[in-house]
Amino acid sequence: MNRHFAALILIAQLLCSFSSLAQSTTAKVREFRQKNEAKIISEYLEFLSIPNVSRDTPNILRNAAFIQAMMKKRGINAEYLDGLSPNVTPAVYGIVKVPGAKKTIALYAHYDGQPVNPSQWTGGLKPFEPVFLTDPIERGGKIIKAEAASPIDPQWRLSGRGSADDKAGVMTILNAYDALVSSKIPLTNNIIFFFEGEEELGSTHIAEIFEKHKSKLVADIWIIADGPRHVSGKKLVQFGVRGDVNLSFTVYGPKRPLHSGNYGNWAPNPARMLVELLASMKDSTGKVVIPGFYDEVIPLSATEKQAIARIPDIAETLKKELGIAVPEGNGQSFLELLHLPTLNINGIQSANVGAMSANVIPTKAEAAIDLRLVLGNDVQRQINRVVKYIESKGYKVLDRDPTDEERLTYSKIIRINAGFGYNAQRTPMDLPIAQQVIKAVQSTVEYPVILLPSAGGSLPLIVFEEKLGAKLVSVPVVNYDNNQHAENENVKISYLWEGIETMAAIMLMQ
Amino acid sequence: MNRHFAALILIAQLLCSFSSLAQSTTAKVREFRQKNEAKIISEYLEFLSIPNVSRDTPNILRNAAFIQAMMKKRGINAEYLDGLSPNVTPAVYGIVKVPGAKKTIALYAHYDGQPVNPSQWTGGLKPFEPVFLTDPIERGGKIIKAEAASPIDPQWRLSGRGSADDKAGVMTILNAYDALVSSKIPLTNNIIFFFEGEEELGSTHIAEIFEKHKSKLVADIWIIADGPRHVSGKKLVQFGVRGDVNLSFTVYGPKRPLHSGNYGNWAPNPARMLVELLASMKDSTGKVVIPGFYDEVIPLSATEKQAIARIPDIAETLKKELGIAVPEGNGQSFLELLHLPTLNINGIQSANVGAMSANVIPTKAEAAIDLRLVLGNDVQRQINRVVKYIESKGYKVLDRDPTDEERLTYSKIIRINAGFGYNAQRTPMDLPIAQQVIKAVQSTVEYPVILLPSAGGSLPLIVFEEKLGAKLVSVPVVNYDNNQHAENENVKISYLWEGIETMAAIMLMQ
Repeated sequence: MNRHFAALILIAQLLCSFSSLAQSTTAKVREFRQKNEAKIISEYLEFLSIPNVSRDTPNILRNAAFIQAMMKKRGINAEYLDGLSPNVTPAVYGIVKVPGAKKTIALYAHYDGQPVNPSQWTGGLKPFEPVFLTDPIERGGKIIKAEAASPIDPQWRLSGRGSADDKAGVMTILNAYDALVSSKIPLTNNIIFFFEGEEELGSTHIAEIFEKHKSKLVADIWIIADGPRHVSGKKLVQFGVRGDVNLSFTVYGPKRPLHSGNYGNWAPNPARMLVELLASMKDSTGKVVIPGFYDEVIPLSATEKQAIARIPDIAETLKKELGIAVPEGNGQSFLELLHLPTLNINGIQSANVGAMSANVIPTKAEAAIDLRLVLGNDVQRQINRVVKYIESKGYKVLDRDPTDEERLTYSKIIRINAGFGYNAQRTPMDLPIAQQVIKAVQSTVEYPVILLPSAGGSLPLIVFEEKLGAKLVSVPVVNYDNNQHAENENVKISYLWEGIETMAAIMLMQ
Repeated sequence: MNRHFAALILIAQLLCSFSSLAQSTTAKVREFRQKNEAKIISEYLEFLSIPNVSRDTPNILRNAAFIQAMMKKRGINAEYLDGLSPNVTPAVYGIVKVPGAKKTIALYAHYDGQPVNPSQWTGGLKPFEPVFLTDPIERGGKIIKAEAASPIDPQWRLSGRGSADDKAGVMTILNAYDALVSSKIPLTNNIIFFFEGEEELGSTHIAEIFEKHKSKLVADIWIIADGPRHVSGKKLVQFGVRGDVNLSFTVYGPKRPLHSGNYGNWAPNPARMLVELLASMKDSTGKVVIPGFYDEVIPLSATEKQAIARIPDIAETLKKELGIAVPEGNGQSFLELLHLPTLNINGIQSANVGAMSANVIPTKAEAAIDLRLVLGNDVQRQINRVVKYIESKGYKVLDRDPTDEERLTYSKIIRINAGFGYNAQRTPMDLPIAQQVIKAVQSTVEYPVILLPSAGGSLPLIVFEEKLGAKLVSVPVVNYDNNQHAENENVKISYLWEGIETMAAIMLMQ
């Protein structure tokens, strides 16, 4: 047993002694869930069957209506919060006021999901036809037939876009509330429910919604129920997130696709140009070589470094599980690397590969890139560095397709478009309210929960600070191996059950 | 007027004086075609409506049956030539024997086509629903409605997979024969018809077919009706082709797709690895830097160099049309570059781009590559160079997906699979039979036809030499801007009409 671990055990024991009340609450919440599993899952299956790709507005509104109905069923008066501009996907909002409440706790989740390519889902899975799995498909999991789906095994997975990211947030929050009310556990805090519908677009209008409805959204703490728990499976409290912005690159070749035999060696190949450009941006360990890329990073504080040092190193577990022999990052630790900015290729495409490939010189080559940002970085300054670098490689940079004249003028043309981006956010870990959140989450488990200064992932949490003056802490509920943002997304049932207990404890935090 | 051009005019005049008979034949063939345009096109539309992707066997056999029926209609007794192994797509074959014939002329075309991705076809075009166009879609062409499609304008295009590559070969050969017989022009040579169904797979079984049916395939000359005419629009006689082989590369990342925020900077990104590898294979002018890549190239002979020098340089025209400011090749001429080996990226893909992109680290990155080969190159030696180079970059090379153990052992793993490949072929231009082909083609036009030592494109013509001991010459019929092998493939009607005249003249060659 090392020194840090011993210290943690001590902290845990202390916390446990304060929380016998909380523990009995957890037991009651668990009892409620055990009695209502079939009902909870049945409602969740219906929720997951409504397609929720952010830009699919008709279906997104069906999701909002479904959440509103779920809230009404639980006695919460739910309304839509719109933005300042027209056609903003509404957030679904509700508040429960408790006489004599000491605090107001706001609980956030989002109901929209990332785009899906159904042809990439395997093993019979479909994005919006949720089913139980014995295990993840990638680990040999099989679909459990409807007639065999009872009793529900907590080791099963439930598949579908949004099952983990982030309808699980909505689902655990509403059922936690249900559990408290149904179990007649008295509420001690006002509770705000806030479910966003544009998170996967980069929360494009959340600032507008906050601005317009600020008075309804005053809270002592915002709890963000999104993202995965720790890789070790332990519960996690996170105090910050990286910022993010997406860039799309398009490099242009000949105006029409050419036969690679009749024009090969002569016609410029845009795929060759794009791979040359992308390859030049990083060294072989994955370090970005664009000038100034790491210059503005504010290093972690001593407290943050300590918190990180206490977290068990999961690199070896991850390597085994993911089939990785040597990670990127030139030997730096997993968590150190997650507290640095990134330039990641999310996707690349030019013409076709495999059975669809043909002997052509493509007309264009495209890449999808995301830049993660940490404290100190600024979205626009980071984009400017990338653009300036690309210009230094001889490219004419446009934000649209080139004209015929431009094609004949410039030997290298790239179209760059940036999505909506935002900066990183970090809440100091030693604020009293932050400590209360830790205590509430800790009350639901016996092992010490993991405390992380900043997640690797991103949420536009900086907007909560800027627009509401809010303090915020993330309390993720889902398993880390959930294929979030990708095909075969799934949530492990036991995480849903435990998430309900976590959210209930937070609603009662003292 | 420069020296070369003056010489060509003289040659053309000499040839013309020999060919008054041929000219009157061309006039008769033209008259036949003019009277039968509607019928010819109606049959061609039906032919193009049969999907012909090489691996789509049921439809491929429908194409073969359709050709057989077209031949029977013209009085040619058609049969299928099978291979030595089972399930070989048959070649459709027929022979017309002429009493007292001096020579046997074999005419080759292929009826299968490259794979199609219908979603990439634009302007309302569909791969297997041929329509007339006022112009190519890429140049603002519009679909001509069925009721407005008569009389047929020779400037129109006819769209569809195979419209140019290479059902046009089948179509011009059979209608040329029809024109001669219907116009009662006496045949002077035996004529062999040979239509292949696996060309776009790399003519996988043509060697078997030749071996099994060699006695039926003895000819003084094989005429290959495939590929495009010269960019200038002039008729072309080609004496060779480049060899070709396709390689597919797959580079592996984590076993499941990962959230780019939660794992970015740590999990190896296979797209980054692949772009780094591909970028390293060429310099910025497109020259391959793989050791030995150009070592075995047999330079062009003096005659071949002269022939090339006589061909008008079309680089400036091409640059304007294709929107190219600076070609690859570091200043070498278009035709010089086409007589060198290539390494071309046909396609590249990892996860998704554009609206489908998501913030992930992909699990794999794939590329489709083709290597063109010239005289002196050998398929296997060239592949070996590429593989050896990739190994020198630290990759473990496999011909299948890696096992879990291999993933944990090697930091860089690539799967390489090679398609069926073949070497280049060149027929000496000064053979008497080669000169006779030139004369026949020249008899149909007044300008000097273009003579090209080797095409940039590829056909497995080396097999004709190896298996049949044949001499062979290519006489392409279609327009160069036909989007061959790509979306929106089309043929210009005037090229079909002129192709019929070319093939008729060849059937009568002396």
